Amino acid sequence: MESHRILFAPSLTEVFQEAGKTVLDAALDAGLYIDSQCSGKGKCGKCRVRILEGEAGPFTQEESEFISLIDKSLGYRLACMARVTGDLTVLIPQENVLSSESAKKTFPKRSPVINPAVKGYVLEIPEEEGAHIASFERVAGLLRGQYGLEGLSADIAVLKNLATVTDEAKGQGKITVFVWMDREIVSIVPGQDDTCLGLALDVGTTTVALYLCDLRDGTIVATGSTTNPQVLFGTDIMSRISYSSHHPGQGARRMQTELFRAVNGLIEQMTISNGLSASRIMDMTVVGNTVMHHIFLGIPPDHLGLWPFSPSIQGSVDVRVRDLGIAINPSSYAHVLPIEAGFVGADNVAVLLSEEPYCRENISLIVDLGTNGELVLGNREQLFSCSCATGPALEGAHIASGMRATAGAIEKVRIDPDAFEADYAVVGTEGWASEHGAGELKPVGICGSGIIDSIAQLFKAGLIGQDGAFKENGRTKRLRKGQSGALEFVVAWKHESPMGRDIVLTQRDVRQIQLAKGALHGGCRVLMRRLNIDSLPRLAIAGAFGMHIDKENSLALGLFPWIDPEKIDMIGNAAGHGAYLALMDRDKRTEANRVARTVTHIELALEEDFQKEFLRALSIPYRET
Amino acid sequence: MESHRILFAPSLTEVFQEAGKTVLDAALDAGLYIDSQCSGKGKCGKCRVRILEGEAGPFTQEESEFISLIDKSLGYRLACMARVTGDLTVLIPQENVLSSESAKKTFPKRSPVINPAVKGYVLEIPEEEGAHIASFERVAGLLRGQYGLEGLSADIAVLKNLATVTDEAKGQGKITVFVWMDREIVSIVPGQDDTCLGLALDVGTTTVALYLCDLRDGTIVATGSTTNPQVLFGTDIMSRISYSSHHPGQGARRMQTELFRAVNGLIEQMTISNGLSASRIMDMTVVGNTVMHHIFLGIPPDHLGLWPFSPSIQGSVDVRVRDLGIAINPSSYAHVLPIEAGFVGADNVAVLLSEEPYCRENISLIVDLGTNGELVLGNREQLFSCSCATGPALEGAHIASGMRATAGAIEKVRIDPDAFEADYAVVGTEGWASEHGAGELKPVGICGSGIIDSIAQLFKAGLIGQDGAFKENGRTKRLRKGQSGALEFVVAWKHESPMGRDIVLTQRDVRQIQLAKGALHGGCRVLMRRLNIDSLPRLAIAGAFGMHIDKENSLALGLFPWIDPEKIDMIGNAAGHGAYLALMDRDKRTEANRVARTVTHIELALEEDFQKEFLRALSIPYRET
Repeated sequence: MESHRILFAPSLTEVFQEAGKTVLDAALDAGLYIDSQCSGKGKCGKCRVRILEGEAGPFTQEESEFISLIDKSLGYRLACMARVTGDLTVLIPQENVLSSESAKKTFPKRSPVINPAVKGYVLEIPEEEGAHIASFERVAGLLRGQYGLEGLSADIAVLKNLATVTDEAKGQGKITVFVWMDREIVSIVPGQDDTCLGLALDVGTTTVALYLCDLRDGTIVATGSTTNPQVLFGTDIMSRISYSSHHPGQGARRMQTELFRAVNGLIEQMTISNGLSASRIMDMTVVGNTVMHHIFLGIPPDHLGLWPFSPSIQGSVDVRVRDLGIAINPSSYAHVLPIEAGFVGADNVAVLLSEEPYCRENISLIVDLGTNGELVLGNREQLFSCSCATGPALEGAHIASGMRATAGAIEKVRIDPDAFEADYAVVGTEGWASEHGAGELKPVGICGSGIIDSIAQLFKAGLIGQDGAFKENGRTKRLRKGQSGALEFVVAWKHESPMGRDIVLTQRDVRQIQLAKGALHGGCRVLMRRLNIDSLPRLAIAGAFGMHIDKENSLALGLFPWIDPEKIDMIGNAAGHGAYLALMDRDKRTEANRVARTVTHIELALEEDFQKEFLRALSIPYRET
Repeated sequence: MESHRILFAPSLTEVFQEAGKTVLDAALDAGLYIDSQCSGKGKCGKCRVRILEGEAGPFTQEESEFISLIDKSLGYRLACMARVTGDLTVLIPQENVLSSESAKKTFPKRSPVINPAVKGYVLEIPEEEGAHIASFERVAGLLRGQYGLEGLSADIAVLKNLATVTDEAKGQGKITVFVWMDREIVSIVPGQDDTCLGLALDVGTTTVALYLCDLRDGTIVATGSTTNPQVLFGTDIMSRISYSSHHPGQGARRMQTELFRAVNGLIEQMTISNGLSASRIMDMTVVGNTVMHHIFLGIPPDHLGLWPFSPSIQGSVDVRVRDLGIAINPSSYAHVLPIEAGFVGADNVAVLLSEEPYCRENISLIVDLGTNGELVLGNREQLFSCSCATGPALEGAHIASGMRATAGAIEKVRIDPDAFEADYAVVGTEGWASEHGAGELKPVGICGSGIIDSIAQLFKAGLIGQDGAFKENGRTKRLRKGQSGALEFVVAWKHESPMGRDIVLTQRDVRQIQLAKGALHGGCRVLMRRLNIDSLPRLAIAGAFGMHIDKENSLALGLFPWIDPEKIDMIGNAAGHGAYLALMDRDKRTEANRVARTVTHIELALEEDFQKEFLRALSIPYRET
């Protein structure tokens, strides 16, 4: 039987599979979890995947029940129905569209100022003059008369539709006009309907998050997240830069196109599931690290990989969405927040908008952990920032049994220091495994917080030394020689997992985490030295990762310099929250440009003492001298 | 043998032709003149036509000598080589690319103020800092330091190329930056080269004219003109409106696309033939009547055909050329001049910029004759304008032997009042036919000025009465019964013409001209009554048509109210000249918006006395009471 290569994204796991087998079979063989409640009979529609390259047999009747024509054209299939007929690249989507309530939980409890860049104005059209409203000058005159708006212009797309819209408005006596920054008309609709939506977009290296908001009152209507499809071009920012450099004139554009396809798909889901129209999204703000920022704008990030790491633009950019290709009201602008310097980008500026350390008297260290780690230390006197190459290990990538913190991931681990038995909690379930029957929690892998817990607990139990090496002690069969000959610790046995294999932590995994924490902890130390402080008054941890980690175990591992756990705040998705604040209040955009220029950026690679701190921080928890 | 329908544009002449015949054969059968110096052997390359619809047999070796790959892809063929194999729509291009000298002749002798909207700035890049210039902020800082420009932004397309351009500039130590309106960077090129071109575009209903200029000194580098391919959708503006109304959402767009294809083709020819790059065209101004203005912007002109004839926008519009599809520097803007009211559009505003009646003490009547006639009467105190539906007859369309004033057209006619013999002059040749051997001038048709001469001379000779009817007098065989039974006058016998048929003026032709002059003269009278004047102090005639007509004969015919011929000025292409002035001097754009709003527009259809004046003006020359 002929065998074909199947590459799964976002994990970039490769497997060879015989022709005729299903994509679901291939995923199981690759050790990847795809939800399938009907056991592969095409009845539940849960196993949606997206074929990015290659053909996967004919589209079946079963699939047409669950996959719309638009999604079909984008390559969506049911993994249990799509068949291997040649080489394939398959994206296992991790799309989530959440309700307003779940979304709010990840945001700090602080109401935004409501002063959006786009506002809707309902215009009364005097009856006897109804026939004349086809003219831009007439609309501008009414806006001046009824709302005092002066010196307006209109986008060409608005002018093209003006006559049609005003024709439709006949008899209603009203139109609603949407004006950007009090100066440009970006949409006109017939009748009285000032529904005006906005979008805050947080482009992460691995995950893209969207917040759909009502610009009139700040309500978060829905949030959505999905894998950044750019993972196909490499999992970290250096490999994205490299892809762009090796494909001049094409690479950045291709990554941009893939990103927009994912964003547009999510916008469609979020609007349709709420009975809204994407054409009513009148404004958007965008944050992301410097590389994501450049690719979003279609600017090749090549120079960011070379000294002096010059970004093409630092200040904020307003760019018409039709010049990008984002499927909201085409005349609207995307406001891309400013970047600081180096890789510390618009996402960190957004974190600052959310946390406002520049207004505080007390010094804070703010850590935003994603695929890259970004640090800001300081107060209203001065702020220092740096970027740490933590790599994706803390997100569960490049880890033997690693996965992201989604359903089925072991997120908490505790190890009995006497019997060395492991207990765990799983995302999407309640309580500890020991409180349930064997295998009831159905863990499929382990995510960053679970890995940190495991290492910290193994260190406390004496199974891992200060240097991170496993210590064979013969008292538990959980610590064993793995296939490579190196030691590994079994967190969950295969009979507990639907994957049918042990979930382990390998020596190599521990090394990966040591490198990540070395970079992060080392970066903290360099910033503290700049501010001439020995201990941290406050630590704020941003990012989804921060929501899952255990403070005690993180400190035991030495992820950060020691601090009283009481002084650690988990601030949730502060980058997304900052994007949301800038969406709701246009003055925050001015503030962002000012703040971005006041932060002093430290390039760690050029700091003499960083290497020393990095090496010290490889130890568990940290070698003080 | 199978026979196929061949439709020729711009004349919309239809002919049926056997399969296998050439397009040149079909054109001759249709009575259309196509230049062919090699008698159809594929050796001279003069008989270029463009196949708009259908296939015309295989592309030959001969054609590849004369037709570039790009032109081939646009459907260009040699008429003598392209063969009828099915129904065809064929455009006989009337493209002319002229040198700077010929162009200037049609402009008034007045130097423009040099203050363009886009200026090029050469930046010295300090050597040691060369590595940093990839940043927008660095470029903006240098522009501030070296030229005092503050608060600049840059188009997204400029940002995308910034790193590449500054890489190329390494070693040269200089870049050149092009800035629009002192506020937005629209292009950056490596090295020191401030070549900065601009384009003035005059979109006529029938003809499109372009002026390629050097924005640094006002030099006209080249001019070009071509048939407006929208003639396919109807020869006058009412039929264009009708096409748009009958194809909602598509019609205006399709006409816009055809226009841009022609404009882009001409831009390519004009730049390549002068060794220039279209990417160096940094700015453009656009004029045209209201319908052309709307279609240029992609705005459906449907409402212009219905009371109250509302345009979608009256003020000037700056629109990014990539939002249109015009192939110049994509970040640049097209500045579309304001329109007055009704059909009196941006072309008339441009005529006003050129003539400046609003600065003069003396009253002028300015007549711009194209497919539509536009009139402005007044001085610095007040100005009245109107539009006259003259129809295309004065341009030689819908006339039995009519043609435009191009090579081969009879442009002057004199008729001996005793013997009734006709003598004529032909565009592209010198002197009168009587001074040459028979048939030496090779007339192929008669254009507007020749028709006016003919009617005026026939009236003087007593062969046409005051009512416009031919009077049979039996003293010349030139006046005879035509095929329809009505009388017609032979201007040139078939042995004098390469077309092999008589060139005639029919009774129907005289009626068409009477209707046109009735509208034009009637419009003049209505405006004069508004200003309460009985006679004209000055008459300025704009447009290519005006350059050819004979003052005495026009007055004898009664095309305008009587005026001393000394007081008639032929002002050439004043609309194109106004577009050129607004291209060279940005302050003219502000002036245009002001002037457009100060002219009082008269809607002739709503004027009580217009109908009376129109009927009177049907008489030759004019029935005073």
